[in-house]
Amino acid sequence: MKTAITPTRTENFSEWYQNLIVAADLAENAPVRGCMTIKPYGWAIWELMREQMDKRIKAAGVQNANFPLLIPIAYFNREAEHVAGFAKEAAVVTHYRLKMIDGKLQPDPDAELTEPYVIRPTSETIIGEAMSRWVQSWRDLPMKLNQWVNVMRWEMRPRMFLRTSEFNWQEGHNVFATHEDANADAKKMHKMYADYMRDVLAAPVIAGEKTPEERFAGADHTYTVEQIMQDGKALQAGTSHDLGQHFAKSFNIQYLGTDGKLQYAWTTSWGTSTRMMGGLFMIHSDDDGLVLPPAVAPYQIVIIPIVREENTDALNKYAEDLGEKLRELDLRVLVDTTDMRAPDKMWKWIKRGVPLRVEIGAREMENNSVTITRRDLGKESKQTVSVDELLKTAPDLMKQMQREMYERALARQQSQIHDVATLADLEQELERGTTGFFRIKYDLTLNAEFDGLIEKYKISRRCLDANDPSFVYVAKSY
Amino acid sequence: MKTAITPTRTENFSEWYQNLIVAADLAENAPVRGCMTIKPYGWAIWELMREQMDKRIKAAGVQNANFPLLIPIAYFNREAEHVAGFAKEAAVVTHYRLKMIDGKLQPDPDAELTEPYVIRPTSETIIGEAMSRWVQSWRDLPMKLNQWVNVMRWEMRPRMFLRTSEFNWQEGHNVFATHEDANADAKKMHKMYADYMRDVLAAPVIAGEKTPEERFAGADHTYTVEQIMQDGKALQAGTSHDLGQHFAKSFNIQYLGTDGKLQYAWTTSWGTSTRMMGGLFMIHSDDDGLVLPPAVAPYQIVIIPIVREENTDALNKYAEDLGEKLRELDLRVLVDTTDMRAPDKMWKWIKRGVPLRVEIGAREMENNSVTITRRDLGKESKQTVSVDELLKTAPDLMKQMQREMYERALARQQSQIHDVATLADLEQELERGTTGFFRIKYDLTLNAEFDGLIEKYKISRRCLDANDPSFVYVAKSY
Repeated sequence: MKTAITPTRTENFSEWYQNLIVAADLAENAPVRGCMTIKPYGWAIWELMREQMDKRIKAAGVQNANFPLLIPIAYFNREAEHVAGFAKEAAVVTHYRLKMIDGKLQPDPDAELTEPYVIRPTSETIIGEAMSRWVQSWRDLPMKLNQWVNVMRWEMRPRMFLRTSEFNWQEGHNVFATHEDANADAKKMHKMYADYMRDVLAAPVIAGEKTPEERFAGADHTYTVEQIMQDGKALQAGTSHDLGQHFAKSFNIQYLGTDGKLQYAWTTSWGTSTRMMGGLFMIHSDDDGLVLPPAVAPYQIVIIPIVREENTDALNKYAEDLGEKLRELDLRVLVDTTDMRAPDKMWKWIKRGVPLRVEIGAREMENNSVTITRRDLGKESKQTVSVDELLKTAPDLMKQMQREMYERALARQQSQIHDVATLADLEQELERGTTGFFRIKYDLTLNAEFDGLIEKYKISRRCLDANDPSFVYVAKSY
Repeated sequence: MKTAITPTRTENFSEWYQNLIVAADLAENAPVRGCMTIKPYGWAIWELMREQMDKRIKAAGVQNANFPLLIPIAYFNREAEHVAGFAKEAAVVTHYRLKMIDGKLQPDPDAELTEPYVIRPTSETIIGEAMSRWVQSWRDLPMKLNQWVNVMRWEMRPRMFLRTSEFNWQEGHNVFATHEDANADAKKMHKMYADYMRDVLAAPVIAGEKTPEERFAGADHTYTVEQIMQDGKALQAGTSHDLGQHFAKSFNIQYLGTDGKLQYAWTTSWGTSTRMMGGLFMIHSDDDGLVLPPAVAPYQIVIIPIVREENTDALNKYAEDLGEKLRELDLRVLVDTTDMRAPDKMWKWIKRGVPLRVEIGAREMENNSVTITRRDLGKESKQTVSVDELLKTAPDLMKQMQREMYERALARQQSQIHDVATLADLEQELERGTTGFFRIKYDLTLNAEFDGLIEKYKISRRCLDANDPSFVYVAKSY
């Protein structure tokens, strides 16, 4: 069977993914090493994702703010683990002027910074410095801040959405009076991420704590939401860190307690990024292109009038009217009256993953009916319904599709988790090409043999099993 | 009379502005030269401004996208005027790794970029390169793109919101088939800015074309919206550029016309930034702090329960209930039940410019009444009204305040424009300390004497009079 995307997922998942991005017009590689340009259709998806995440962030009592892009090297250096984690991928600003020298535009040697700046890879340090001034007494706590910004981590093996040198994200930074409060809040934001991915992205997650080996640079505990892509590989889709007093001590975030004593605060940080888009695409899409859950689809419904020369105006008008009625139901609707051929329009919107396609030809117009096809179920779902029926059921249908997409993704995820009892069993599964997550006793992965498997099969510990932390999930990952 | 902000506007406008920003908790200087941190209250204002601008941008048929932060120097260099305009303030990334050398963290000499990058000061070049690939035929035109991003222009004399090395903005970039279309659209976006400032910021503008001396680096025409601050100085609040074929030719943006011929396209760009916030603050605020138009006030109404020990819970609950009812009218309401003293709360929210203050004491609760005070009119407007009356009138009152703030600002602006017939008259006015805009024959400002006045009084040509382009507005500016 011919598919819109070649190769198919089973033929070559990695190439399929690259071609999917082109076919759905989501993004392209930028002329800057490791960076991407997110095209309008891709960015419209991100805007919907961001808007719904932002609501949940604000509902959690967090305020948005905006901190500088550049970080003085000295700040960066104050927390030892942190600098060790990020120094190797730091983009460094060393000059503040360009000059034409020997006919070539280059950094002006007379405008070299005495203290270079790093483009933020994350903002614990610069926000920690501000918090040391903003937090004075227990009355100021908890303080919960977030910013939606771009960050940069120089990337040697970039992959669109999943791993790019520059990426867009939200980074939350909270301060608390006690470790108990901080830890509880790190877990709360972790749960918020898991709920968001379930409800908005229709994406199931495996939520758990990272093992010490995989923690964020400078954290006491890192809680992660891991997703399983259709090829069985893991994607770390979001993390929430209990930073203990690492940053409070490095940046002197102290508060006067109710007991009148000055003491160090406890901080957390939590982040999700455009990387989630990669997960969204690799969880739901198929060999014909993108499949979007209605909650993040720029257009939830596309109406395609199948016109002939003699009825073009009337049919287009009929389609526009129907679009207007659907929009009144708070649905995002596109009526495609461009002069492309109807089959080309159809394939364009299939590839872009619009949840519901509505086709109207001369006969449908006459009968006050439409032919609808669900993107997630494909042509088997094609049926003709009356316009009244469509108007009555469309909002609920969106909810139903959202739910069913989640359920299918969940069933697939469950089929991709395998229990293994020993390292030998694990190796046997990897050797025979079994894909997915492997659940194994955590202490087994501390044996020296496990390092050999990491090396040989490029696997890693994803997170501890939340129900039984003596087990850990192990997988290949993006 | 004691004022919340000292010095007052008349005593020292520049210091008043700095202190206003502190008093209203809007922002602070960052530990990065020339950069600022926008605090939660300031950022909440920006989010409201951005949201309402974004709606207008989308209504104009523009799509948002996201282009990289870094620009290869070679790109930057392709348009001669453009590089001349921005090379002197470019932040340059030269290394992609840090290394500890002699106990000091510094750029790793082994990780020097062969081709350094510039942090975007604006994105005509990198977007131009993309458009050269995205635009193929007349069917692709017009193409209208916008991005909301941070940019960087190294600033030697920074001033919060008005002039910072890093700032947040929207930059629109449109491509057209003809110069006529491009020019008309540059004017359309220029008008969109003026309308937005009037309707959303309650800020009148002087809208007109820049003289050739003041054009954007690489533009054929620059259309500007200029605002007059309370001290009479000009603020350039937004610009829209007709770029002719400068960038189309430098970046090879060509399209196949309906005539089958390949030809260069015509481009525009248009931008507004967090600088508008500085204008908003300096147009409306007074000696007691910020005065916000309801359309961009994070809280349009603050309810302050004036509690005594015996009625704290009951009164707070009563206030919360009223707050809920007002929120149901789509108003942004804060009920301040913190344990500060009522007068401190009152002054806190006066300084932060909340449009309407609602006070409720024991007697008011008993009578089902409230005492309301408009921030823009001050204590003279204080009156007691029934709760029913408040609920009935509050939404309209917001519209009325928005309108009246605009009208007052417009009247003030008109009083700050002065006609002068000769350069000698202009000098006389400047010499006697007259502030504001001076309207004078444009050709007079082309005389050599005018250069002397520019130098001596730090004035500049702001824009041509839209009603009579033989006249130009001249003023000191931010």
